Amino acid sequence: MAVFPYDIHATDGRARTGTLRTMRGDIQTPAFMPVGTAATVKGVYMDHVRQAGADIILGNTYHLMLRPGAERIARLGGLHKFCGWDGPMLTDSGGFQVWSLSKLRKMSEEGVEFRSHIDGSKHMLSPERSMEIQAELLGADICMQFDECTPFPATPDQARASMELSLRWGARSLAAFGDRPDQTLFAIVQGSTYADLRAESAQRSIEAGGYGGYAIGGLAVGEGHEMMCSVLDVTTPHLPADRPRYLMGVGKPIDLVEAVYRGVDMFDCVIPTRSGRHGQVWTDTGPYNIRKAEFAEDDSPLDPAIDCPASQNYSKAYVHHLIRSGEMLGQMILSRHNIAYFEDLMRRIRTEITSGTYDRFVSDFRAAWA
Amino acid sequence: MAVFPYDIHATDGRARTGTLRTMRGDIQTPAFMPVGTAATVKGVYMDHVRQAGADIILGNTYHLMLRPGAERIARLGGLHKFCGWDGPMLTDSGGFQVWSLSKLRKMSEEGVEFRSHIDGSKHMLSPERSMEIQAELLGADICMQFDECTPFPATPDQARASMELSLRWGARSLAAFGDRPDQTLFAIVQGSTYADLRAESAQRSIEAGGYGGYAIGGLAVGEGHEMMCSVLDVTTPHLPADRPRYLMGVGKPIDLVEAVYRGVDMFDCVIPTRSGRHGQVWTDTGPYNIRKAEFAEDDSPLDPAIDCPASQNYSKAYVHHLIRSGEMLGQMILSRHNIAYFEDLMRRIRTEITSGTYDRFVSDFRAAWA
Repeated sequence: MAVFPYDIHATDGRARTGTLRTMRGDIQTPAFMPVGTAATVKGVYMDHVRQAGADIILGNTYHLMLRPGAERIARLGGLHKFCGWDGPMLTDSGGFQVWSLSKLRKMSEEGVEFRSHIDGSKHMLSPERSMEIQAELLGADICMQFDECTPFPATPDQARASMELSLRWGARSLAAFGDRPDQTLFAIVQGSTYADLRAESAQRSIEAGGYGGYAIGGLAVGEGHEMMCSVLDVTTPHLPADRPRYLMGVGKPIDLVEAVYRGVDMFDCVIPTRSGRHGQVWTDTGPYNIRKAEFAEDDSPLDPAIDCPASQNYSKAYVHHLIRSGEMLGQMILSRHNIAYFEDLMRRIRTEITSGTYDRFVSDFRAAWA
Repeated sequence: MAVFPYDIHATDGRARTGTLRTMRGDIQTPAFMPVGTAATVKGVYMDHVRQAGADIILGNTYHLMLRPGAERIARLGGLHKFCGWDGPMLTDSGGFQVWSLSKLRKMSEEGVEFRSHIDGSKHMLSPERSMEIQAELLGADICMQFDECTPFPATPDQARASMELSLRWGARSLAAFGDRPDQTLFAIVQGSTYADLRAESAQRSIEAGGYGGYAIGGLAVGEGHEMMCSVLDVTTPHLPADRPRYLMGVGKPIDLVEAVYRGVDMFDCVIPTRSGRHGQVWTDTGPYNIRKAEFAEDDSPLDPAIDCPASQNYSKAYVHHLIRSGEMLGQMILSRHNIAYFEDLMRRIRTEITSGTYDRFVSDFRAAWA
């Protein structure tokens, strides 16, 4: 299979900036991937996602296999054509959301049987089926191995058993993925909060051979910011320096800044769109809610520093009114602004790393969030 | 007050095409005005409303006075600045929606006292207050006289009493509107379904002097398409040929085509956005619902003939999926497409009138809708 070229341009401590070159375009790292759950980044036109600065978006295998169905998307020409995004796309393996969303799960060595949270219909996911959906039917550029997201907390024994299962499923994922010159497969490192297991999971994933990148799974599941940072501290040193590292499902701006500081290159999270639908506006010092009475007559734009029409062209008072009135446009503007904020943050992070000033940037960011 | 220049370019039977020149730009007629109820055309960015071909949008006095409040909009620089629409804007008088939406109404010669449908707060509308809100606080380019929308059905006595009230309120509206060089006031002709009353209402409104245009009120209230056409037949001949004629709250494409045929120049309706939110796609032969199973794998665009990204760039299968999944983007795409369809229809109507072929266009349109 393809291992996409990854050029590291600069490093600053453990932080790095680089370019991952896929068949559908380049991804500047550190990169934030907006989440396009059901073949749409909720409430945002794809051209606005692109304008906001996203190089790549994420699609959810679980949602798409249930509705409209992976075979249907394949008959319609694949996920890129279906949703109108012609840049790189990454799909998750479906495993995490089977556990968080589906009903009546039955797990075995083979895989997971479950019922749809939408209509109760019966489905199955296994390493082989996940690869078929991601690589063959949806046509993702970057696919993820099928894994089990180790629940938090887990005893050392539970964490090891779960890690071993993910390693076996990883080997089957590699075999099922096969030889795909235009697509790549990422491993997912598990091991819960245990340094020795994280190291072992990383080492054995590398030894399996052929992965184009390495994800860190099992975080952002309730362990908290401090623990997440601790796990990254003992995990990223075991990942190959020349391959992209992807922290799944993370996170808030401070999480991104701290994870980059620890050598992570890629992120995805629903926060920009989900919190935007609830009136939250992201800034360097955290989010504020535009519903608050203090914004009712605030004529200033959401954030004039962000190069995005949603951030510059609407007053806080207007968006306050829209959100309070339940108007769709308010959700559209905030989702778009928040994505632009996250992408702008990644651009600034890349600049600081290039300038060798990332340490100071992190210190300032921590102080602003404290 | 200003009577905006109105150049009639061509007539074909009673149908006319022209340009109404406001201080904020020209309006090509016959014109369809998308409705921006609460300072937003629901689910559509203002630049997309403009791209779809709209020259003018409508704002609702009733909604805006309740939320965020007319005085607040004034403090924020007026409705145009507030919502980011720099073209011409028309506001209704608020009278119709007080009757259709508010609670605990108390009507008198002075005006109407009512309670907000949002929070139960007490408010008042009168000719003087409506003019203050529309002209002074919101800053509409085209304001509407305060009137009573005669309920349907009405006896001749009821219709006359209601019409007389609207004429008295019209005179007070004119006086309150005063001398505004950059804004204009339209009369509203009432008279229910009675030809003699419609003629009298038109004549006395003209005699009142100073109106920049004439609206036809009290239609689209349950009388049906045939009755609406009949009332237009006996009303438009009494309106000045050199002034724009505006049929309020109408309507479906066939209504627009028939009303233009009877000499109407301007329209507004929530249909494009409201029905779009429910999955309806408008075409020359009526609407279809994209939720239908037959579109699940239909790879063709919504309507390749409409020069709008929403109409051309998304497959029916994709929009079907989005609407079935409750995704905002589906509602956004359909609302935008439907506005583009309505604006495209008006463009074609103008072209047919200019070509002197409107009779045939109407015949074909009737046949397609039959």
